[in-house]
Amino acid sequence: MSNPFFLNKGPISLIKIYKFLNINNREKNDFDFYDIKDLSNADQNSITFFHSKRYKEVAKTTKASFCLTSNLLKDYLPKNCKPIIVNNVFTAVSRITEEFYPNSVEDEFDNKVLEIENFNYKAVIHGQNVLIGENVKIGSDCMIGHNTIIEKNVHIGDNCKIGSNTIIRNSIIRNNVSILDNCIIGKKGFGFFPKKKKNLRYPHIGIVIINEGCEIGCGATIDRGSMSNTEIGKNTFLDNQIHIAHNVKIGENTIIAGQVGIAGSSTIGDNVRIGGQAGISGHLKIGNNVDIAGGSGVIKDIPDNSRVMGYPAKNLREFLRENK
Amino acid sequence: MSNPFFLNKGPISLIKIYKFLNINNREKNDFDFYDIKDLSNADQNSITFFHSKRYKEVAKTTKASFCLTSNLLKDYLPKNCKPIIVNNVFTAVSRITEEFYPNSVEDEFDNKVLEIENFNYKAVIHGQNVLIGENVKIGSDCMIGHNTIIEKNVHIGDNCKIGSNTIIRNSIIRNNVSILDNCIIGKKGFGFFPKKKKNLRYPHIGIVIINEGCEIGCGATIDRGSMSNTEIGKNTFLDNQIHIAHNVKIGENTIIAGQVGIAGSSTIGDNVRIGGQAGISGHLKIGNNVDIAGGSGVIKDIPDNSRVMGYPAKNLREFLRENK
Amino acid sequence: MSNPFFLNKGPISLIKIYKFLNINNREKNDFDFYDIKDLSNADQNSITFFHSKRYKEVAKTTKASFCLTSNLLKDYLPKNCKPIIVNNVFTAVSRITEEFYPNSVEDEFDNKVLEIENFNYKAVIHGQNVLIGENVKIGSDCMIGHNTIIEKNVHIGDNCKIGSNTIIRNSIIRNNVSILDNCIIGKKGFGFFPKKKKNLRYPHIGIVIINEGCEIGCGATIDRGSMSNTEIGKNTFLDNQIHIAHNVKIGENTIIAGQVGIAGSSTIGDNVRIGGQAGISGHLKIGNNVDIAGGSGVIKDIPDNSRVMGYPAKNLREFLRENK
Repeated sequence: MSNPFFLNKGPISLIKIYKFLNINNREKNDFDFYDIKDLSNADQNSITFFHSKRYKEVAKTTKASFCLTSNLLKDYLPKNCKPIIVNNVFTAVSRITEEFYPNSVEDEFDNKVLEIENFNYKAVIHGQNVLIGENVKIGSDCMIGHNTIIEKNVHIGDNCKIGSNTIIRNSIIRNNVSILDNCIIGKKGFGFFPKKKKNLRYPHIGIVIINEGCEIGCGATIDRGSMSNTEIGKNTFLDNQIHIAHNVKIGENTIIAGQVGIAGSSTIGDNVRIGGQAGISGHLKIGNNVDIAGGSGVIKDIPDNSRVMGYPAKNLREFLRENK
Repeated sequence: MSNPFFLNKGPISLIKIYKFLNINNREKNDFDFYDIKDLSNADQNSITFFHSKRYKEVAKTTKASFCLTSNLLKDYLPKNCKPIIVNNVFTAVSRITEEFYPNSVEDEFDNKVLEIENFNYKAVIHGQNVLIGENVKIGSDCMIGHNTIIEKNVHIGDNCKIGSNTIIRNSIIRNNVSILDNCIIGKKGFGFFPKKKKNLRYPHIGIVIINEGCEIGCGATIDRGSMSNTEIGKNTFLDNQIHIAHNVKIGENTIIAGQVGIAGSSTIGDNVRIGGQAGISGHLKIGNNVDIAGGSGVIKDIPDNSRVMGYPAKNLREFLRENK
Repeated sequence: MSNPFFLNKGPISLIKIYKFLNINNREKNDFDFYDIKDLSNADQNSITFFHSKRYKEVAKTTKASFCLTSNLLKDYLPKNCKPIIVNNVFTAVSRITEEFYPNSVEDEFDNKVLEIENFNYKAVIHGQNVLIGENVKIGSDCMIGHNTIIEKNVHIGDNCKIGSNTIIRNSIIRNNVSILDNCIIGKKGFGFFPKKKKNLRYPHIGIVIINEGCEIGCGATIDRGSMSNTEIGKNTFLDNQIHIAHNVKIGENTIIAGQVGIAGSSTIGDNVRIGGQAGISGHLKIGNNVDIAGGSGVIKDIPDNSRVMGYPAKNLREFLRENK
C-alpha cells in the first residue's frame, strides 16, 4: 500500500516490538522494521499480521520477515516469516501501527485550514467559504463548491468537480472525478476494539483513492482504510446516500444505486451493478460482471458473472421463482 | 411538463434531427419541432419517444407528430405520429434533448450566487452565510437557515421554512412548505448510459415541485426529473434521510418514514404510508391508500387500498402468516 | 424526565384543561397542574396520559392525580388517579402539552446565534464560521469543527470533539463524546397527527442526552423526544448515516453499524450489536447482550442474550438453517 500522508516513525526494532506487546523476547538477534504492512504488501523489512484462516493462501507467500499471529495460524506462514504469537492479533497490530504512525489514531477536524483565497491554484473556480488544509494539491480546471473543506493531505487531479458542503481529507482524487454535495471522504473508519467503559480506537493509516472518471453522489461517506486503502476504480458511479466503509475496494465501470452500504474490507469487481439499498457484509469478494438486485443483503462471496437477489442474496432466478 | 427553468433552443428541424442521429433522411418534407416531450405531454409541434412496451397504451394516444422509437414498438403509434427508428431510444432522446436544452447536462455548483443581503426579499428571516442564485423568488414570511444555498431557478412560496445547510436548485416550492437541514433538492438524477471508460450523462430538463404544506426531513436528497418533473403532493410528510430519485411522483397526504428510498420514475398515490427503510423499485405504480410496512422491498405495482410487507413485498396478512 | 430547556407555563388549572379539550367539567373541585408527564414520571401535581394497553402495568402505579385516557383503559388506573376521558388521547396530550410548553411545537432554525468569537469558552479549539445560540455551555478542552451550529439549549461536557457542518440543539452532551461531521441532533421528531390538508404537528418537549464516551458517526440524525428524552448510553458507538427517532433509549457499550434506523420510542439494551442497515420498528424493547445481524428488520421485542437475523428478525441459527 502506498501511504503518502502519514509520517512513518520507523524503523522500530524487534526488541521494542516485544516490549510494546509485553512479550518475553525469545529471539537472539534484533531486527529493524521499517513498516507494518498487510500480508500481500509486506516486504522483508516489514512486520505483517495474519488473523484469520480466510487469508491463509496469501499468508503462504508473504515476504515479511515477522508476522503477528496466533498459535492456530502460525503454521501457514512460510519459512522466511517468523511468527510472533499474540493473544489478540488486532490489538497487537493496533499497538504497533500506532508506534509507526502516531498521527493516524486521532482524527479531529483540521483546524489549520485557510481560506482558498490564500492559495494560488490554477484555473480553479470556487465558491464562498472554501477552506484548504496543508499538503493539498488541486489540478487545473477544477470546481469546488461553497462551504467545502479540503482538509490536509488531499491530492485532486485535473478537471474535477467538487460540490458544496463536502469534506475531504487523506485522499487522492484522480482526473475527471465528480464529487457531489454533502460528502465526507477520508475520515477514519468505524474500527475499534470494544471495551467496557472505553472502546479502543485503532489507527487508520490507509487513504481513499478515487480513480479517473468516477462520480460520487450526494451525502456519501467513504471512510479511509485502516491497514490498506479504500479505493474506487475508474468510471465507477455512485448514487446518493451511499456508505463505503474502510478498506473496501471497488472495481471499474461499476454502478451503485442510492443508499447502498458496503461494509469493511469487501472487494467489488468491475462492471458490477448494485441496486438501491442493497447491503454487502464485510470481508467479502464480489466478482466481475455481477448484478446485485436492489434491497439484497449479501453475506457471502459472489463469483463472476452472477445475478443475485434476496436476503441473504442468492441466484436471481431462484429467488424470483421462490417468491412469485 | 412545465419547464420554466431551462432555456429551449428550439425550433429544431427534422433534417437536423436526422443529422444529429446519423440517420438517412427518408422524409420528403422538413418539419419544425419546438420541444421534446414524453408521450402524454407531447403536442403536434413536439418530437416524442417510446422505448418500452410498458407505455404502449399512452403511445396509442400521443399527439406528437414524430416519435423516436424502435422497430418492435413502432406499430403501437397512431397514424398522426411517424416513427423515427433508432438503435437505442435513450441515447437518441439524450442527444436531441441536449440540442433543445444544452444547459441541462452539466450540473456543477452555482458560482453566481450572492449573499442574501444583496437582495430585497419581503419579511424573510435568514441565517448567516445564506447564498442566493439567479432567478430565485422567495415569498413573504419565509425563514432560511444558516449556510443554506438557494441556487439558480428556484421559486419559493409564502410562509416556507428552510433549514440550515440545505441546497436547492431548479425547484418550485409552494406555500407553507418546511424543508429541514442538510437537504439537497433539485440536482440532476442518477441517469446515464453506462459506457466503458466514460459513462454518458443524459440531460435532466425536469424540475422538482414540492406542493403546499409538505415537510421534508433532514438529509433528504430529491433529484430533479430527466424528461418529466419530480413532484411531491400537498401535505405529504417525509422523515429524515430519504432519497427520492428523478421523475418520481408522490401524491397528497402521504407519510414516508426515515431512510426510505424511491427509485426513478415511480408513482406513489395519495394517503400512502411507507414505513422506515422501505425501498421502491423504479417505474412502479403504487396506488392510493396503500400501506407499505417498514423494511419492505417493493418490486411490482401495488393496487389501491392494499397493505403490503416483505421483500419482495406481498399482502401483509400473507406475509405475517408465513413469518410467524 | 428532566426537561431543562423548555419554559413551563404552568400551573394550569383543571377547569382550563377541560376548556382546552372542549369537555364538560364534571369535577366539583378545581386543581392546579404543574406539568404533563408520562405515567412513570408523573407525580401528584402532574397530569398524565394512558393511550395503549401496552402500558397497563405502568398505569397501575402512576402517581399522577389525573390521566387523559379512553373509556377502554380507564379501569387500569389506580384510585389516586382520576381519568379524563377523551376521544383521542394523543391529540389531547398534544393540546395540553402545547399549553404547558408553547415553545416546543415550532422548531425553526435558531436565528439568534452569534459567532463563537463572541463567547469566552475555556480551551475550546474551533473552526471557522461556528455559530452558538442562547443557553449553550461548553466544557473545557473541546473541539468544534467548521460551519458547525450549536443552537440554543445545549450543554456540552469536557473533552468533546464535534466535527464540521453539524447542528445540535436541545441536547445534553456529556464528557468525552465525539460527534462527527454533518450530524443533526436534537431536532423535533417525525411526530404528528395525520389530517387531510394539514397534518397537525405535536410538541416535542424531550431532549437528546448523549452520555460519556459515545461516538456518533457522520450524517447521523438523532431526534429529540416528544414526551420523554432520546438517550444514548455511555461508551456506545454509532457508525455513519444512522437515524435515531424520537424517544429512543440506547444502553451502554452498544455498537451500531452504518445506515441503521431505529424507529420511535424503542429501547435498546447494553452491549447490543446491530449490523449495518438493520431496522428496528417503533415501541420495541431489545434486551441486553443482543446481536442483530446486518440487514435485519426487527418487528417484535427481543429478550436478553439473543442473536437474531432476518426480516422479520428471528433466531440467528434458525434463519441461517432455513436460508442455506
